Amino acid sequence: MSRVYNFSAGPAVLPEEVLKEAQAELLDYNGTGMSVMEMSHRSKAFDEIIQSAEADLRELLNISDDYEVLFLSGSATHQFAQVPMNLMKNRVADYIITGQWSKKAYQEALIYGKANKIASSEDKTFSYIPDCSDLPVSPDADYVYICENNTIYGTKFKKLPNTKGKILVADVSSCFLSEPMDVEKYGVIFGGVQKNVGPAGMSIAIVRKDLITDDVLEGTPTIMKYKTQADAKSLYNTPNCWDIYICGKVFKWLKKMGGLEVMKKHNEDKAKILYDYLDSSKMFKGTVVKEDRSLMNVPFVIGDKDLEAKFIKEAESNGLKSLKGHRTVGGMRASIYNAMPVEGVKALVEFMKKFEEENA
Amino acid sequence: MSRVYNFSAGPAVLPEEVLKEAQAELLDYNGTGMSVMEMSHRSKAFDEIIQSAEADLRELLNISDDYEVLFLSGSATHQFAQVPMNLMKNRVADYIITGQWSKKAYQEALIYGKANKIASSEDKTFSYIPDCSDLPVSPDADYVYICENNTIYGTKFKKLPNTKGKILVADVSSCFLSEPMDVEKYGVIFGGVQKNVGPAGMSIAIVRKDLITDDVLEGTPTIMKYKTQADAKSLYNTPNCWDIYICGKVFKWLKKMGGLEVMKKHNEDKAKILYDYLDSSKMFKGTVVKEDRSLMNVPFVIGDKDLEAKFIKEAESNGLKSLKGHRTVGGMRASIYNAMPVEGVKALVEFMKKFEEENA
Repeated sequence: MSRVYNFSAGPAVLPEEVLKEAQAELLDYNGTGMSVMEMSHRSKAFDEIIQSAEADLRELLNISDDYEVLFLSGSATHQFAQVPMNLMKNRVADYIITGQWSKKAYQEALIYGKANKIASSEDKTFSYIPDCSDLPVSPDADYVYICENNTIYGTKFKKLPNTKGKILVADVSSCFLSEPMDVEKYGVIFGGVQKNVGPAGMSIAIVRKDLITDDVLEGTPTIMKYKTQADAKSLYNTPNCWDIYICGKVFKWLKKMGGLEVMKKHNEDKAKILYDYLDSSKMFKGTVVKEDRSLMNVPFVIGDKDLEAKFIKEAESNGLKSLKGHRTVGGMRASIYNAMPVEGVKALVEFMKKFEEENA
Repeated sequence: MSRVYNFSAGPAVLPEEVLKEAQAELLDYNGTGMSVMEMSHRSKAFDEIIQSAEADLRELLNISDDYEVLFLSGSATHQFAQVPMNLMKNRVADYIITGQWSKKAYQEALIYGKANKIASSEDKTFSYIPDCSDLPVSPDADYVYICENNTIYGTKFKKLPNTKGKILVADVSSCFLSEPMDVEKYGVIFGGVQKNVGPAGMSIAIVRKDLITDDVLEGTPTIMKYKTQADAKSLYNTPNCWDIYICGKVFKWLKKMGGLEVMKKHNEDKAKILYDYLDSSKMFKGTVVKEDRSLMNVPFVIGDKDLEAKFIKEAESNGLKSLKGHRTVGGMRASIYNAMPVEGVKALVEFMKKFEEENA
């Protein structure tokens, strides 16, 4: 077996030791004589899996009893509708547009009410985070919405916006568990799990309990009410058991690694290696203003399409995979999530140096 | 490793050879150096996985180009809303109530319009399929809805209802690919995959192309429009890649087994062993009228709660797992899906005989 360094933006690299455990247990989980894929979601064995996944996640993020943790069938894209369906009581919400995903969420909210763009960085291809210290928050806004880390453009909110007392809703798909977060500052935190946590096919939502009510927009499917899943402990429908199982293993791995403070340090160290090189290179350039750079997604360009294609191709044949930038942006992007070892980033930088020398 | 016989109603037993392949490939799929769980859904390797899954499914069910095959994030419960959202143009639909799932689908449809119960077997605890040869179909009904196999109660439509020209929509979660079906008779066929096809966390919908339009109910989330996913070839959002991969392996296994005619014969043979014993036993009784018996889910009772509890407990310790009936019904239920080997059914019947002798 020869594992590569996988810089995919999502689905993305998972901890090798998690995969090895899943492999060993695949036909017989913990002496049950069956795979987790075959196991009733109402069985004792699965109950332990989901309970300990929730407990470990609560511990990692220091989530208080004021919040529900929901494991939800469907993708983060479902949440783009689910957020307004559950929260848009006044049919008004404010969106900060920092990339394609917040824009999609904004467009989805327009189906349900008056969504306002109160800040945007679209003028400069989303290469920065707009100043959010004094936003024109709508007086009747039900919430203010951000995408906290922008996978495609490689920016991150280093400081949360001043919502002037309004509920903050954040899509954290691509930075979830990459560093500590102060959950109490949010009304809803959600993310697709396929970037930093587990395989694609599920989202996790952390929702403040007072926001979970039966008072949802007319026409909301029962399964898309947060209350339905909160009341049923995420088991209203058959959940994505395999995903919860893998996520649970990743949570345990994160705890073993030392928790989110330690992961943050790891991630900063890894990102620094790549950003320092980008800042010194004459060939490769980062695309994001320094103060808003993501620790997770690092887009960069050469500025010559042929050379970029050559770079991506040669990187592939050197075991450095999925470095092509998002199809809407071009160039390159290295996603260096929690599970990317520092050796992977070092190997990438070494290869970039060599490529720069050879193609100067 | 000691595998058990797993009679769970879903998630349920999967073919052991599929699990073994998935295990072998878990850290390195087909020389890519990564797991399918880690792989971009836009990669060449995954493109081949989803394309061949669709092609094999089309071959197994003989699905014509008049139909789209959609791999959808979310559960069959999402479809309970998605069906009316996409099809209920007149805000009228007719439901045939043969169990808890069709009842839930009916209740969900009431959110969106006038849903009519045009037949029901609730009067006798859903132990039969009502006569559907001359139904009071509503003149303006957008569709007629059935749950074709009733997992909880163990009944199956052996003959499709006469819909008097209306579109037939069928939830086939628990009989999907257990026998051939004439796809052309349906407008929409859908199912959660976690019973007969793959791990929980996805549904498959087979939708007649002329029913896939932008003309959906107001308030329908973008991701819940069939057109969104049809246009995007099921890749509008990040799909459940792992599930598509496992389902694809199950499709290949079914082809290798000889296809759905052969599976039907296997399933009839297996079910006969159990039903014949139930018909001869003085202790155990099937709960369903003979002509409507499911090949997949076989509920049975003793009629003595203590003895039933003893039976389930002793069966467990003999490697016959998950035989407890649904919590809303009680008694026992053996789900004997495609992947349950005949040896499992024989072992169950042998154990039942022994239990009957010992407890007569």
